[in-house]
Amino acid sequence: MTLDQFKLTIHMVSSLDGFIAKKDNSISWFETSHSYDNGVDGEDPVEFLKTIDCYVMGYHTYELALLLSKDYGWAYGDKPTVVLTTRPLQSDRKNLTFYSGNLNTLIIDRLKPNFNNVWVVGGSKLTKEFLTQKLVDEIRVSILPIILGEGLAFFDQIGQEHLLILKDAKAYKNGMVELCYDVKK
Amino acid sequence: MTLDQFKLTIHMVSSLDGFIAKKDNSISWFETSHSYDNGVDGEDPVEFLKTIDCYVMGYHTYELALLLSKDYGWAYGDKPTVVLTTRPLQSDRKNLTFYSGNLNTLIIDRLKPNFNNVWVVGGSKLTKEFLTQKLVDEIRVSILPIILGEGLAFFDQIGQEHLLILKDAKAYKNGMVELCYDVKK
Repeated sequence: MTLDQFKLTIHMVSSLDGFIAKKDNSISWFETSHSYDNGVDGEDPVEFLKTIDCYVMGYHTYELALLLSKDYGWAYGDKPTVVLTTRPLQSDRKNLTFYSGNLNTLIIDRLKPNFNNVWVVGGSKLTKEFLTQKLVDEIRVSILPIILGEGLAFFDQIGQEHLLILKDAKAYKNGMVELCYDVKK
Repeated sequence: MTLDQFKLTIHMVSSLDGFIAKKDNSISWFETSHSYDNGVDGEDPVEFLKTIDCYVMGYHTYELALLLSKDYGWAYGDKPTVVLTTRPLQSDRKNLTFYSGNLNTLIIDRLKPNFNNVWVVGGSKLTKEFLTQKLVDEIRVSILPIILGEGLAFFDQIGQEHLLILKDAKAYKNGMVELCYDVKK
């Protein structure tokens, strides 16, 4: 494992109008009802998820994941997961740790030495911090065919311009479009 | 020309973070620098634009178009163009008219009898009004490979959920992705 293999990806599932969560936290909008004939079939999610080595999330995303885990199970399996928070929290969950320091230090000390593919899975505040500190290698957005109209925005006002390089664009049969970009550094 | 052929399309060119204009109104961000090898070549814009019968825009979009016309010419050619405004304006431009009434009346009285393909080209306030009044048939978004970080948002908080049906997703060699959706009614 060498340092230059390290990649930090921001990943979000978003509505066309840029929301990643409804006000009531319901997730039924993730189920789309139609069929896009030109779309590709979904990849085997199990195979795909194997390529991710570690998840990083903010406190509110963690809270939502905990809430949803009651009905759907814990979404991140036994993958190492780091929750960024200054709250003095504890968890019995295997491989889940809390971190309250500087993002750059997190990457240098804890992520780069141990992992290749790190996924930051929300929320918008954390996305903004990683982006403005130029720590993001890749952005992967899955756009669902819906306008939510209100909710939690994917992109907080980042306040900075970032050039992107389109690497992949895929439309799925369920109407979801996945766009993958490198962040130009 | 029959009534059921009528289609009202919302079209926007947007950054990945959902902005359609920079604060300084500059448009150099429309020029992308990279090449996406799997992308298709751009369609012949002249041929494509021929399919549009009429443009509808809000006052601020009109103002911006006027400003840009000094350097780049008037973007809408001799196509019939309706500017929605309550301001008492006049223009010598051929086929440009101002309208200050109700949107539904505009469609029934002036658009449906005369045109098939009407494009609403901004801004976000007008997009919101057309959407919340259920007058939109199609949404076409061209996403450019950039995070602008701030500016004028494409989607104002619409405040309503709208299911969409993906009809087309195309990635171009310049890194632009064009998504086309029907609005479910």
